[in-house]
Amino acid sequence: MNYISLKNIDSLEKWVKQALKIKKKPLKNKKLGKNKTLGMLFFNPSLRTRLSTQKAALNLGMNVMVMNFTNEGWTLEFEDGAVMNQGASEHIKEAAEVVSQYCDIIAVRAFAGLVDKEKDNAETVLAGFLKHATVPIVNMEGCTGHPLQALADAITMAEHKTEHKPKVVLSWAPHPRALPQAVANSFVEMMLLQDADFVITHPEGYELNPEITKGATIEHDQNKAFENADFIYTKNWSNYIDYGKITNSDPSWTVTAEKMALTNNAKFMHCLPVRRNVIVADEVIDSENSIVIEQANNRTYAAQLVLQKILENAQEKTHYSS
Amino acid sequence: MNYISLKNIDSLEKWVKQALKIKKKPLKNKKLGKNKTLGMLFFNPSLRTRLSTQKAALNLGMNVMVMNFTNEGWTLEFEDGAVMNQGASEHIKEAAEVVSQYCDIIAVRAFAGLVDKEKDNAETVLAGFLKHATVPIVNMEGCTGHPLQALADAITMAEHKTEHKPKVVLSWAPHPRALPQAVANSFVEMMLLQDADFVITHPEGYELNPEITKGATIEHDQNKAFENADFIYTKNWSNYIDYGKITNSDPSWTVTAEKMALTNNAKFMHCLPVRRNVIVADEVIDSENSIVIEQANNRTYAAQLVLQKILENAQEKTHYSS
Amino acid sequence: MNYISLKNIDSLEKWVKQALKIKKKPLKNKKLGKNKTLGMLFFNPSLRTRLSTQKAALNLGMNVMVMNFTNEGWTLEFEDGAVMNQGASEHIKEAAEVVSQYCDIIAVRAFAGLVDKEKDNAETVLAGFLKHATVPIVNMEGCTGHPLQALADAITMAEHKTEHKPKVVLSWAPHPRALPQAVANSFVEMMLLQDADFVITHPEGYELNPEITKGATIEHDQNKAFENADFIYTKNWSNYIDYGKITNSDPSWTVTAEKMALTNNAKFMHCLPVRRNVIVADEVIDSENSIVIEQANNRTYAAQLVLQKILENAQEKTHYSS
Repeated sequence: MNYISLKNIDSLEKWVKQALKIKKKPLKNKKLGKNKTLGMLFFNPSLRTRLSTQKAALNLGMNVMVMNFTNEGWTLEFEDGAVMNQGASEHIKEAAEVVSQYCDIIAVRAFAGLVDKEKDNAETVLAGFLKHATVPIVNMEGCTGHPLQALADAITMAEHKTEHKPKVVLSWAPHPRALPQAVANSFVEMMLLQDADFVITHPEGYELNPEITKGATIEHDQNKAFENADFIYTKNWSNYIDYGKITNSDPSWTVTAEKMALTNNAKFMHCLPVRRNVIVADEVIDSENSIVIEQANNRTYAAQLVLQKILENAQEKTHYSS
Repeated sequence: MNYISLKNIDSLEKWVKQALKIKKKPLKNKKLGKNKTLGMLFFNPSLRTRLSTQKAALNLGMNVMVMNFTNEGWTLEFEDGAVMNQGASEHIKEAAEVVSQYCDIIAVRAFAGLVDKEKDNAETVLAGFLKHATVPIVNMEGCTGHPLQALADAITMAEHKTEHKPKVVLSWAPHPRALPQAVANSFVEMMLLQDADFVITHPEGYELNPEITKGATIEHDQNKAFENADFIYTKNWSNYIDYGKITNSDPSWTVTAEKMALTNNAKFMHCLPVRRNVIVADEVIDSENSIVIEQANNRTYAAQLVLQKILENAQEKTHYSS
Repeated sequence: MNYISLKNIDSLEKWVKQALKIKKKPLKNKKLGKNKTLGMLFFNPSLRTRLSTQKAALNLGMNVMVMNFTNEGWTLEFEDGAVMNQGASEHIKEAAEVVSQYCDIIAVRAFAGLVDKEKDNAETVLAGFLKHATVPIVNMEGCTGHPLQALADAITMAEHKTEHKPKVVLSWAPHPRALPQAVANSFVEMMLLQDADFVITHPEGYELNPEITKGATIEHDQNKAFENADFIYTKNWSNYIDYGKITNSDPSWTVTAEKMALTNNAKFMHCLPVRRNVIVADEVIDSENSIVIEQANNRTYAAQLVLQKILENAQEKTHYSS
């Protein structure tokens, strides 16, 4: 069992319930991970993912080995058949097979480069580990998705929803740097697994990958989208069509108190880190309706659920084979 | 309970005795930290602090998560109300609140920039964590103090003092690079909590922050200061008045055997790392009277005492509330 | 007891047998390392060594503290009597003595600079730790040797050999960057401890240190060397005579299927990371005869044997002295 995308979730409703149980007694399964090792490989910076995933593993009694691949290890080659007389010192084939021998689970973070759409969509790094590793792989944010974040978001929404079928809005917001679409993609995929009135709002031209948003409502008028919303999830992403470019930085898309007033007293969500007064005004993120800190807290339980499922799955296999 | 400065010590004498008890049986409280997590956040390099604090936590049975914030995480914004359209990706408010959810104690190292005196005196990073974190904060060297070092120094002096009221000299020494005043400040604050004949010696113009040295004797003649001393604590600091500048590099301030001969067979102390034959001559640091290695050893027990007090304090609170 | 070079092995045959026992039950000695701490200090990048040594320590129940010395700590001075008014902030004397107080074993990786042969041969960093540390030192690859790799290689060969006295060939291969001789040196030293028909093959002028290869057969015709070989161990090294230079990059030395056909169905070995289609053709490293992944796996058990021996040795000493 791997956890690469939302597609690896058999029942989101069930997973959310299980995660909330873990949250109540996070140390209940402290023996499950005994003598098991999680390898965390970072190709990009990380705060929440780094600490919450590590904490989740510790809660399960696992050992953790953390490695910043880029400066602590070797540059990797991902192409089959490459003549490796250039920069890369090691092929993913060896790296993944070797690390699999030291770890029971490998978690990988590798952001989009935002230069070559095809390459990013191919998820070179994650796909390489997935192909060559002999142990389960967990996605700690790839080029096109951040499924641990989306799972934490689902847990957080379950804790805060009052309506059976809430109105949930994913709203683009401006940002000074070009950011990946990963968080937005996984949030969309997660929402499409739920019974909700789900609307995506962004400036024209900022459409996400249509294969991902298929079935979602898209509304270019942010104010209209916000009407009667129960949850506002804000996130910047760079242009997917004019790939990786910033073609809009319209400050009128910043989420302000005035905009939140259009909603049904909506909760405000963001995956963090967030640029204050660019993505969202202080007055909103500091308000009682902001649940961004709780979202980050739930990262631990999302990761713990995933690790627990993988460990249980491995245990079952061992049981059947013995 | 936090450990930010010497002001957090209620009785230095008591603390030193407790630390010496811990040193005798460092594993006695191995259960106290069970399932508790120390987060160590570094904004600057560290050898002794990194390893000794980690070791202290391990001795208490804690989990440790170490993070080099600068290159592994996000650049932080510390100003309230900032429009974050520049370099910083995350506000200290979110960072501190979020990390508080993964850790039971947060330890932070953030050196002085030595450019803006007011900003350094405000301890931007530490103050930010202190304000926004919801768990205890430990200072692993801030801009203006290094209280774990000073506590280790007090422990080391208690082990080596023969006089009831020893003469202790803090002596400035030259250094090729501009260094913070943090270690010197905390040493002064620590000495002022003790019954000692305490003298600070430095070239004219190298006065430390007068708010810190108030009550201490200052002597600009190094030789005179050394007379009959029982402990010589050497440390460079850059100019506090002409802030962060090196306005003196007089090699005659280097601590030599000739100077040590003026003392009452004094012990030689330094916090390390030390520039040999610049701060101190080999003949002194390599002599039997040098206790710099034991100072570094006591860093573990100083940190362990602080962590233990914080854990016990948290336990008591839980006890009262249940 | 230290593990610095193959010279620290009293009986390679015995060690290999012990390592293979550990491999069968890696958690059998989980209590041996309880409350013991391994400090791993890296002056260079590392993947296999970093993770396998850490894994080995965890299998023994040890605590591990990992530190990238270059960017997380201070620049070290190694020269006795140096006036430290230049780049280095700390002398190895203090660094090694201090770290010894926090760790029960110190493991060090410090590659050859490949500029100054004499300095590299002096193993400045390792020798510094060896001289000044007060706890056992493990070599995680120095300038002139990589004895943990060679031990893993011996284990792997023992698992795969069918002949009592196999023919083993160490073959140079081209590489775009100048690499140290460390792995080759230790492999040679290891082979000379065994009863084998051992041949080194490399282009003329690429002789390794003759003090190390004394007693080994050298054959400049690679094809001839490969004839009837049972094991082909490939590795690039830069020129030892014209020190640190690349004076040959002849692609005809790449190990291909055609060359392997000359052998007695030989196993293919390499320490990794390996440049595919430069050092070795895909067809060879991807063949059934390639045992490079198993070599990397055995790094864990090589490290675990070394750590176990050091811990047992320390235990005995304590026993005798009590």
